[in-house]
Order: sequence, then C-alpha cells, then structure tokens
Amino acid sequence: MKKVKIGLLGATGYTGIELLKMLENHPHMEVVFVTSEKHAGKTLASFFPNLTGRPFGELRFIPASEAIQIEVDGVFSCLPHQTAAENLLPFIQKGGVKIVDLSADFRIRDAEIYKKYYHEHPNPELLSQAVYGLVEWEKNIKDFNIVGNPGCYPTSILLPLLPLVKAGLIETTGIIADSKSGVSGAGKSPSDATHYVEVNENFSAYKVADEHRHLSEINEQLSITAKLPVNILFTPHLVPMTRGILSTIYAKPKAGVTRDQILACLQNQYAGQACVQVLEKDFPKTAWVANTNRCMFGFKITEDGQTLVIVSVIDNLIKGASGQGLQNMNILFGLEQNCGVI
Amino acid sequence: MKKVKIGLLGATGYTGIELLKMLENHPHMEVVFVTSEKHAGKTLASFFPNLTGRPFGELRFIPASEAIQIEVDGVFSCLPHQTAAENLLPFIQKGGVKIVDLSADFRIRDAEIYKKYYHEHPNPELLSQAVYGLVEWEKNIKDFNIVGNPGCYPTSILLPLLPLVKAGLIETTGIIADSKSGVSGAGKSPSDATHYVEVNENFSAYKVADEHRHLSEINEQLSITAKLPVNILFTPHLVPMTRGILSTIYAKPKAGVTRDQILACLQNQYAGQACVQVLEKDFPKTAWVANTNRCMFGFKITEDGQTLVIVSVIDNLIKGASGQGLQNMNILFGLEQNCGVI
Amino acid sequence: MKKVKIGLLGATGYTGIELLKMLENHPHMEVVFVTSEKHAGKTLASFFPNLTGRPFGELRFIPASEAIQIEVDGVFSCLPHQTAAENLLPFIQKGGVKIVDLSADFRIRDAEIYKKYYHEHPNPELLSQAVYGLVEWEKNIKDFNIVGNPGCYPTSILLPLLPLVKAGLIETTGIIADSKSGVSGAGKSPSDATHYVEVNENFSAYKVADEHRHLSEINEQLSITAKLPVNILFTPHLVPMTRGILSTIYAKPKAGVTRDQILACLQNQYAGQACVQVLEKDFPKTAWVANTNRCMFGFKITEDGQTLVIVSVIDNLIKGASGQGLQNMNILFGLEQNCGVI
Amino acid sequence: MKKVKIGLLGATGYTGIELLKMLENHPHMEVVFVTSEKHAGKTLASFFPNLTGRPFGELRFIPASEAIQIEVDGVFSCLPHQTAAENLLPFIQKGGVKIVDLSADFRIRDAEIYKKYYHEHPNPELLSQAVYGLVEWEKNIKDFNIVGNPGCYPTSILLPLLPLVKAGLIETTGIIADSKSGVSGAGKSPSDATHYVEVNENFSAYKVADEHRHLSEINEQLSITAKLPVNILFTPHLVPMTRGILSTIYAKPKAGVTRDQILACLQNQYAGQACVQVLEKDFPKTAWVANTNRCMFGFKITEDGQTLVIVSVIDNLIKGASGQGLQNMNILFGLEQNCGVI
Repeated sequence: MKKVKIGLLGATGYTGIELLKMLENHPHMEVVFVTSEKHAGKTLASFFPNLTGRPFGELRFIPASEAIQIEVDGVFSCLPHQTAAENLLPFIQKGGVKIVDLSADFRIRDAEIYKKYYHEHPNPELLSQAVYGLVEWEKNIKDFNIVGNPGCYPTSILLPLLPLVKAGLIETTGIIADSKSGVSGAGKSPSDATHYVEVNENFSAYKVADEHRHLSEINEQLSITAKLPVNILFTPHLVPMTRGILSTIYAKPKAGVTRDQILACLQNQYAGQACVQVLEKDFPKTAWVANTNRCMFGFKITEDGQTLVIVSVIDNLIKGASGQGLQNMNILFGLEQNCGVI
Repeated sequence: MKKVKIGLLGATGYTGIELLKMLENHPHMEVVFVTSEKHAGKTLASFFPNLTGRPFGELRFIPASEAIQIEVDGVFSCLPHQTAAENLLPFIQKGGVKIVDLSADFRIRDAEIYKKYYHEHPNPELLSQAVYGLVEWEKNIKDFNIVGNPGCYPTSILLPLLPLVKAGLIETTGIIADSKSGVSGAGKSPSDATHYVEVNENFSAYKVADEHRHLSEINEQLSITAKLPVNILFTPHLVPMTRGILSTIYAKPKAGVTRDQILACLQNQYAGQACVQVLEKDFPKTAWVANTNRCMFGFKITEDGQTLVIVSVIDNLIKGASGQGLQNMNILFGLEQNCGVI
Repeated sequence: MKKVKIGLLGATGYTGIELLKMLENHPHMEVVFVTSEKHAGKTLASFFPNLTGRPFGELRFIPASEAIQIEVDGVFSCLPHQTAAENLLPFIQKGGVKIVDLSADFRIRDAEIYKKYYHEHPNPELLSQAVYGLVEWEKNIKDFNIVGNPGCYPTSILLPLLPLVKAGLIETTGIIADSKSGVSGAGKSPSDATHYVEVNENFSAYKVADEHRHLSEINEQLSITAKLPVNILFTPHLVPMTRGILSTIYAKPKAGVTRDQILACLQNQYAGQACVQVLEKDFPKTAWVANTNRCMFGFKITEDGQTLVIVSVIDNLIKGASGQGLQNMNILFGLEQNCGVI
Repeated sequence: MKKVKIGLLGATGYTGIELLKMLENHPHMEVVFVTSEKHAGKTLASFFPNLTGRPFGELRFIPASEAIQIEVDGVFSCLPHQTAAENLLPFIQKGGVKIVDLSADFRIRDAEIYKKYYHEHPNPELLSQAVYGLVEWEKNIKDFNIVGNPGCYPTSILLPLLPLVKAGLIETTGIIADSKSGVSGAGKSPSDATHYVEVNENFSAYKVADEHRHLSEINEQLSITAKLPVNILFTPHLVPMTRGILSTIYAKPKAGVTRDQILACLQNQYAGQACVQVLEKDFPKTAWVANTNRCMFGFKITEDGQTLVIVSVIDNLIKGASGQGLQNMNILFGLEQNCGVI
C-alpha cells in the first residue's frame, strides 16, 4: 500500500515531537516535511537530541513557505491558534489535502463564540467545513477534510459528559468541572509560569470558573448535544508534574436515575473502544494513562443521590492532543482508527 | 518569666518535628519530654539527623509510661486518633495539664458523629470538655484545658466558609470543596500509596465526595454555625508535592449578595490576624504559604452571579497541624497567640 | 511463524510490567504465564489498573509451582537474587527452556565474588553455563541458554568503558564512576527510603565508593577485558525522579591518547547499534533516553589532557533491565536483536 | 541599641527574598531600601505575593540611582557579576558603608583569574580591599569593608577541603568534586534550561570537569592555602529539585593518613561552629540542611586506603548565598556571627 504523505506545520513543540514519535512507527504514513520558521535548516536531532540516531533525526525543518510546494496528502498543524488558520489556508485552497489542526481554530462552529474567547476568526467561512474531532463521540469525521482536534481539558470532560447529556440522565445546569493539569499543557516557551522553581512544590488555580478559553468548545458541544444552551463552570489547576489531566466533574442526576443507568449509558457508548475505558469501581489516576492515548473514567453517585461525581483522566499530550490527532488523521484516510497510536 | 514545661507524645512523625523546630526558638516554652515507644532511648538526632548539633538533637525519646512521671504544664499529642485519647487520659486525670491534641479525638462534639466516621470514642464524656481550636474563628479557646486541633483540610475550608455562613451570605446547601493536598498529609509510615514512584508524576482523587473522615468536623462546625444541618461535598486529591493544601470551594451566594459584601465579611472577621490573609484580587498558590502558619484565600463571584468560588491555601503541616497547635498552646497559657509560630 | 511461548516469574514489580508492555506488541512472542505467589488468582488489571481493557489485563497470576507445568520456550525471571536461582532451577533441570534472569544470580562468573557481595550461591555449578548479557558488547550470547541480564548501573558504566579498556586507551587504575539513579531502581516495596516525602526535594549518596554490589559485575567484566584485576570506585546517588541513570565517569587516558582515538574506538564498537549512541559533542541527559532502550554517552578530555570524562545515560528500567532482557531473549531465539524493544 | 541600616541592591531574585525573610526578624538590622530598576515603584508584596500582610510587604522598590541618596550602614548586592561592581562603586566611593556582595565580583584576588573566567574586572584595584567571606574558615573578615560572598558550589567544596589541605593530610593533585545542585541555583529568569518540563524527571551534567566559573574561586582558595597551584576537576549537575547542593569529593590521602586524623582535623576546625557539622558516621542528604544555613559533611577512606570520599551538603540559597551573606554582614558590624540566620 502506498504510504500517506504527511506534513507537520510547527513541529518544535511538545505535541509535534509526540506526533513524530508515533509517526516514526506508523505502517501507513510517512513524514514528508516538518516546518519551523525559527529553526529552518536544522535537523530534528539537533533540536531534539533524543532523536539522535533515530530515523526522523536527520529530517530538516523547512519554513512553511517551502512546505506548500511539497506534495502531501495530509497536514497536521501544531501551530498556535490564528497562526494555524493562516498557515493552513494555502493547503485548504490548494485542495486535496486533509487537515488535522491541533489549535482552536477549527474547533468552534459559531464564529461569534470563537470571537468572544479568542478574537475575530481569520476565515469564518471555513468553520462549517470542519468537524470537532472528538474521536469516540463524533461519528462523521470521515466525511470532512478539516478536523478541529479537541482541546486537552475538553477531551477529559466531554467524553464522559456527552453521552449522559444526550441520554438525558443528568441536569444540564450546575455542572462543575474542576480540572488539574501537568505543566506540558502550558507549552514549551519559557515563562515565569513554567519556571521549575515556580511550579515545583506548588499547586495553583488559574482562570477560575468562567474564564478559560476551553469553555468555548466545552459549552458548544454540550449545547449542541443537549439542544439547549449549557454553561458549565470550569476551573483549571496547575499540578507539579509534566503530563496528565484529571477532571473531577460534579453533576446532578435527574430524579430517579440510578448508578446502573449511568454505567450502562457510558459502557454502551464506548463499547469496543480501546482508547476509552469506563471503570466500574475505581477512580483512575493520571499515571494510569501517561504516555498512552487512553481516557479512563470512574464515577459514583453520592449517598444522598444528589450528585454524580466523575473522575476522568487523560495524557494531555496524547489523547489530549497528538494521539487523538493521529486517530483523526487515520479516520480521514480510511485507516483503522487507532493504527500507530500508542 | 518561668518557662512553660511542654511534653510531646508521639514525636517521630512529621508534625512532631515541625513542633520541635518551632519550640526550639520559643521564648516562653521548653520541651521536657518527647515520647516514642519504638525509639525510646534514642536521641532525636539519631532519628532526625538534620537535628545533629542543634539544641534538641540530644533530647532522648522516652516511652509514654515514663512521661507521665515528669512534671509538665502542657502536652501536645501527635499520636494517631484513639491512641491519642488513650495516652492523654492519664494526663487529664492527673489534672493541671493543658492539652493540645493533633488527632481527631477531641475535634468532634457529638460522640455519634465521631463513631460514624471513626469508631466508638474511648472517653465520650471528655468531648464536652474540649474545644475545636480553629484559632482565628473560635473565641473561647482560653477557657478550656483540652483543645482538639483542627484537621488540615478542614482548616483550609472552614476559615473562609464559617464567617460567610454565620453572616448568611451563602446558601448552606450545594457547597462543594474540591481539595488538593501534598503527600506529607499521609504521614510518615511507608505504604504503596506514599511510594515515590507511585506518587511522582501522578495525580489522583480519593475518598470521593462523601467519604473522608474530615467531613465529620467540617459538617459539625458548619452546622453549629448555621444552626441547621449542613452537609457539603468534599473530594480530596493527592498532589505530587510534599507540603501544601489548596481547596477550591464552590458555593451559592444568597440572592443579591455582592462581591463587596463577601470581601467585607471576610476582612472584618480576620482583621489584625497575621496568620489569615484575605486577598482582594489574587488567587493564592500553595507555595505562598509553604513553611508558614498562614492561611490565604482569594475569591470571585462568577459573571452570572450564581457561584462564589474561593481558593484557600495552607501548609498542611503548619497551619494545618503543628503551627495551629502551637497557637492553641500559646492561648491556653495566656501567651501572645502567634508567639514562636513561623 | 509459530510464536515463542514466554513465561514471567515474578511479574508484579516495575521490571515485570515493563516487560509485559513490550511483549504485548511483540510480533513473535506470546506470554503464556505470569507468576506471583502473593497475588495468585488475580488478574493483571486488578494489580496494574492501567492495563484495564488491554490484552494482558485479563491474564491471571499463578504461583511458580504451577508455572513449571506449563509448556514454555523462554522464561524471564524478575525475582530478587537467590529467589531467582531457586525458582529457575526447575526450568533449567527440565531442559529446553531458554532463560533470561534479571537478578544478579547469573551475572557473576566467579562464585567467590558472588559470595563476597551477596552470599553463598545456591547453584554455583550453573555459573559457567550462563553468559553476562551486555548486548552490544558480548558476541556469544546466542550460544548460551542462560543469560544473566546486567545490572542497571553496570550497563551505564560498562558500555562506554569496556571498548576503551580493551583497546588500551585508558589506564585501568583510578577509574571513578559517580552514578545517579531515579527511585524506581529501588524497587516497588515501600520503605522509609522510597517514601515520597523522604525522596522529594532531596539528593543523597549511598554505598559510597566501594560498597555497592554492582561493583562485583563491573569489576569482573573490566578485569576479564583488561586481563588483569581492575577495581574502580563507584558511588551511587538517589535522584528525586522516577526513571533514569546518569553515570559521570572519570578515567585517565594513556599517554598520547587523543580525543579522536577515543571517539573512533567507541564509534567502531557501536556502529549500526540502534540502542547505543555515541555523541560527538553533547553530554546526554537522562530524559533523552527515558522510556527507551537506548544508552547514550558523550565525553571530553580535560584541557590538561589528564582526564577523560564520560557522561552516560540509560533508562534504568528499560536498557538497565527489561529492554536489555528482551534483547537477550530475542538473541536466544535467533530473532532480530531489537525486535519489539521500545 | 540603634539598628544597623541595611540596603539591598537587586532584591527581586531568589537570594534577595531569602535575605529579606531573615532580615525581617533580625534584632539588630533594619532594611532601609530595596532596589529594582524594572519594578521600581512597586511594593514587595506585589512582586512576592507570599509577603502580603508581612512587615516587608509594603516596602517599595526604588532604582539604584535613588538608593545612593539614602543613609545606610551596610549594603548587600544580589546583582549579577559586573553589574554588582558597577552599582557598588558609588557606595564604596561614598565611604562608611560596609558591603557584602553575593556576585563573583569580589571573590577573586587575582584580576587575571577573574578575567579568564569572567571578563575584564571593572575595578581591579578594589580586589585587594575585599575578603573572600568563607565564614567558618576566614578569620579576618571583620578587618575588611568589602566581602566577596563565596559561591554556592565553592562553599560546599572548600569548607571540607581547606582544613585538610592546610594540614597536609591530602594530596593536592587529582582532586575531583562531582557536584549536584537544585534548580534555584540557575536564578529566576525563565529559560529553556529552567523550564519545568525540561528539568522535571531529568538529570544532567553541564560545564563538565574544567569549565565552570566557580573553579576560579575554588582553585584560588586551595592554592592560597596550599601555597602552590592547585587545580581540581569540578563537574556540576542539575537535579530536579528546587534547593540544595551535594558535592561528592574524591581526594587522595597522603601516605599513612588515618581516618581519625581526618576526623580530628575537621572537628578541630569547626568546633563550636553551629553552622558546620562534621558527621562521624553518616553521609548527609540535602534535605537535612534545606532552609538552614548549615553545611554538613561526612566522609570515608576506601578499604584500600587510596581514596578519601567526602559528601558535603548545603542549601544553595542559604549557606550558599544569603545565609552566609548575613553571617558576613553580622561580622562586619561586630554582631554575633549567626544572629538572625536561620
């Protein structure tokens, strides 16, 4: 079988390297370019010394302007939002290129919401051509050419919540997601906030309750599914560790809803899905999914029957970014969904 | 001034060493005994090598049975619950000894609640003689001879909540405390749960929502203050760090309550209190209070006015244990409340 | 091709789980038993919840006494020394089973040395039937049926030193290896030494200079290669991290030896070896090889020409244990050496 | 007693805040200014939120140009080298101000050595007016007005080595110091090298063997003491922790030198010194001295009698910087050496 030719825009960050590590062993894809404006001309191994002696180590970064000349079947963008849409536009216009964008630029259907949380969208007309690629939830990914790859926090929150909302098992008001993330979610650029001494032996909240941009996609997806406006509270926290997200989610079961109904709903949704595990008894820990593409969740209804508590974990760089991105690319090319995904 | 003679029961754990470090420099207290059944006869420096060459290093552990013979004015117990009550009983019966117990044995007023969360109380008749020593909240500590020193999680949760409940500014239903703690809170005994490899690069929830024993004191204190039964949800989490608790607390403001009212209420309560800081704008991080006896909290009301979110931090070993314990002992002896407290 | 049937003795530790993760995807091996005396009857997923829903999750531990009844081609032992030899003996006596032992029981050729560092060897007559499986160094592994898999520290030290000793480029006296290891090297049993609070924010030396058992295999291998007795100094240290070993090695180049000679010697030895990388300019960091089977080293000769300094890194659980173990098993069965190795 | 008026130049880094925390409780010193060019006008609490509500929190940063106008008895500089000398010059020229400089600018006696490791010294004529303030070693600090406060690595290395060199108990050739430091030693400015994700779960060497600037002061002090040129090897490493240095030092005892002689030499040198502890049996860990001004060391002679191994630990920010700095300032003003030092 001829291999799918893959390009990577913006390959010097954490999600880029994770993608490359998976693509190195992918039986049906080959990387034909990696871009970096700043490091153009250098080899990957000179930037990621851990790649020394590995197949991709000798690949060289090129600028995006050159990349557009190269024949390619699929493009991943690991660029930040706005830059992503700008750099993907030529590939979209060129046609015949399938795209998975890891930024927020194609996650939102409503340009007004995008504007509220980010800024004016550079190409609002493209939003309807893209799909929100929450792999184990969205059935129609293969019908699109542009995938907005879900954010890390939203992946951990939506996978357990969407089936329950769709089935009408929980109230859509009063939902709280109290999330905790490792530091790699903040990206590779050094800042006061990512300085080792600032993070180590420290735990903090940020963008408390109604401020974080990921609320845009969380609320849009919940609202689409509920067919009414849903607004949850979402407080992210920074954990002194490199990888992993744990979301503790509080919701109110509808009157009479039992634990068994919740369990059946979630198990039905994710039956046969290797990358989503519904635990019957345990609450998962982030280390259980580190370096894997899996989302695991456990849950309980409190003794008074008033609250459903879900604990959901993912590796923010894999299921929360590159792993889910590769699942999406597999789907776009009709490959087995989890092919080459760790 | 003659120094207050202090004894420590169970001085080999983390709270014991923190107490000793503070007592080393206390101008009005001197340590006359430290007990350990297991290490009786050894010097502190042989157990805590970091004390080598420091004044307390040459002190020797004695068994509790010998300690009762020694003349003493005040006794701290750093023993686990049940053992604490058993070992303190001889000192209580002897009379003339003021007691600060860092276990749960004297925190609960209602023996039925104690039984539900722990077991049959060994001396239920003593419960009414003890006070819940939440220092900056409870005005009557000095009138008692036995102080039940508050738990670590409850200290972080009750200091911000109690004034708001008392002032009637928040609903007493639907309160959620999502708390995160460093590992020293689990104590010094090695176990699978405290193994470095299990904790490092990992984040987990435990005793989800309605299971943790600290709910006994949290709910009892809130109920006493509200004058009606209050039951909150409380989910503790384990953070890969040594020290610190951060509690993210969600509550519903009563209709019409403003941010300014919340701020005024909290500032009034804690005016002049060096160890409690109400932040007007920021949300505190655990590192801001590490190795101090301070509790700091910040808060916001969400844009929709429906939720008050409080972020509260303490050092679990200091304000959450030994530092507050020393404040209590100071009060029992009429000393300045924060004397010798770091 | 018929798959090689593999059994694991003692599969509940860190090296066991690493082996299982690699074997899960091995194209030519299948796991037919895993043993645990303590957890016999339980599934792997109940012990390692991160395996929930993965192929091996439903495998059940059996006691070693049952394992001997099962038809098997190769056996890994992840048991501690002494227990390893005892449990492997029945498989050796049965015949036709190839063995890779991750303990020290088959690493030493000289029973007297084994005795000095460990204790009386239970089956000294077997020592001559085993080979020290330092994969990229030892050419004759395929001729043996028993492999003593090298220790973690020795792997990081011997891979760079042995070629230089053999080529006569360095003095064999005065060699110092100052090594630093993550905590997983201490194994899974909880102890004071592995308690999170004891390890975190702490760095320490242990078994300073001439005490650690790994000196037995380091010195024996160096002596065999040098054809004269070599005794190096070796000081291990504990680093607050989970995985990784970095050895800083100081040696004296023989008179007139140049940097280029050192480089050529190492490059020749490891040409074409995917799992050993000689860096020309950089000094590697442990994170560069984390979760891989690679050993990387860099070196320099000091300006005065008197000292060669080598910095060598491995992942102690992979190249220092399970990964090298799987390489050895591949070799025993004539498979490609790095097949299925991460 | 009238308090000594103290100014701090460059108070926004890690050593500045440590100094301020100690000065807050110093019975005989008061802080009259703190400078920052970048943050002039802001309060300390707005920069260090953990100071909120503490006495120094309301102090405001001023630029250095204003500071020179303020009456002051002693000045600490926490500025980087070169900037330190430039900013201290006006205070030196003004006269009557005692100075403790935490940079390298006054540590070196020989301007040529300073130039080799740093650059042309801005005021070489001042070097002879300054003393190398290794507190428990140097007897004449009180006779000077300018103290070059020792570097962190050198403090951990020189305190154990200098007495042995002076007493002629060890060879002055072939000494190796293999040192390991927490990340706070790299300062507060964010960079790739201090990014949490780069440091966490990683261990690395840098400036291997003969490159680090601290060799200038190490070798100069050893040479002065030995009365002949001494050049040691020194390899620093970065540990994933915030604070602490551990130096593993290898030296050759002179023929016939016994363990008891080494012990007696070190004990004599540091008898009565609260901040230097010579351990008779143990090797210290960095956590034993964290947040204290203590240096602890243990040692052994290897069985073959050929090597003395010393393990020495300090807190790099306290004994390796601010704590020793405060000791020096105490000495300059005739105060008890350890007054106010933690």
